[in-house]
Amino acid sequence: MLNAHGQDVHQCDSGWVPVYVDQEKSISLMSIGFLLERPDDAIVWRGPKKNAMIKQFVGDVAWGDLDFLIVDTPPGTSDEHITTMDALRPFNPMGAVVVTTPQAVSIGDVRRELTFCKKMGLPVVGIVENMSGFVCPHCTECTNVFSKGGGEELARHAGVPFLGCVPLDPLLTQSLEQGKDFIKEFPKSAAYSSITSIAQQILDGVTQGS
Amino acid sequence: MLNAHGQDVHQCDSGWVPVYVDQEKSISLMSIGFLLERPDDAIVWRGPKKNAMIKQFVGDVAWGDLDFLIVDTPPGTSDEHITTMDALRPFNPMGAVVVTTPQAVSIGDVRRELTFCKKMGLPVVGIVENMSGFVCPHCTECTNVFSKGGGEELARHAGVPFLGCVPLDPLLTQSLEQGKDFIKEFPKSAAYSSITSIAQQILDGVTQGS
Repeated sequence: MLNAHGQDVHQCDSGWVPVYVDQEKSISLMSIGFLLERPDDAIVWRGPKKNAMIKQFVGDVAWGDLDFLIVDTPPGTSDEHITTMDALRPFNPMGAVVVTTPQAVSIGDVRRELTFCKKMGLPVVGIVENMSGFVCPHCTECTNVFSKGGGEELARHAGVPFLGCVPLDPLLTQSLEQGKDFIKEFPKSAAYSSITSIAQQILDGVTQGS
Repeated sequence: MLNAHGQDVHQCDSGWVPVYVDQEKSISLMSIGFLLERPDDAIVWRGPKKNAMIKQFVGDVAWGDLDFLIVDTPPGTSDEHITTMDALRPFNPMGAVVVTTPQAVSIGDVRRELTFCKKMGLPVVGIVENMSGFVCPHCTECTNVFSKGGGEELARHAGVPFLGCVPLDPLLTQSLEQGKDFIKEFPKSAAYSSITSIAQQILDGVTQGS
């Protein structure tokens, strides 16, 4: 998605050097994908090895000064999530941005994710509803592929902010596929305004110190 | 999806009694969801506890005579997958039905899943491409929400059967949401013919002993 596949991670005195996606080094990345010999290699690891790697990604990477460290986790409430929380706790993380689709099965998973955050003492920055309707490029009618409004209802029920909906947008998926800069290329697309609004709300929360 | 939420699991002499979704007991289910006190409870378990539960689901449930045992796993190649393989190996499993979306990120995950199956000695029954295009109910034009043909290309590349594409179909998601019988209710929908064709190919594979 960030056009960084095939890049290598190097060592420096202060640890692993992350992969930079642009000349200005505005975004630095670390992923186990950079450590594989071949992209098809399966990481057949049980919890303890994954946990050790997560701790290394937090502690042994020469991140330098960061405005934000974003950890993209799989769904669930297991090793990855417990260990990430344990490793980041000393840095007082801002919180979790919880992403759901409008489907009942996804909402159910995310409800349990919210319970996990509460148990762990991790604030919830807000909930995002992804895959929220599809605007047909042929007739411009919007169809709810899945049911509607589940994310917003969940946020109300859980008493956390609802940050917005991201529609299924072929322009967005096409950009991600080709590693293009969606924000620069498609400022008029359906997903653009929702994504920038969500990002702005998160930034506003930071400046308000919440 | 099977309209079975809120049901309880009971004990009998030969183990846990699975939950039946119909009078004829044609489908029996076991899920950790049935063991939770509240549906919002998070299972904050590291690998070893999950592994013990998976082994119990295979060995301590009074499954009776089954035509098929279907295990729905999350994506990945970690504890859940290793333990499921270890627990099922004595029963000589037919193989894995591997599901991807057409997106490059999903295809990448599934390539690693195929490597995992190979390492584990698990045959691959075939690959299914899900979320494969969206037929607008307003204008009937088909749009590829994600890129196209990734699943079929992956199958060719990996030398395993391609079982078919399932389109994004609001009638299907609506049925799953409401626990309705999609096959009975929407025999003319876009997803119906693809799902039945995929099921038939899997059954044909069984009768051919592959």
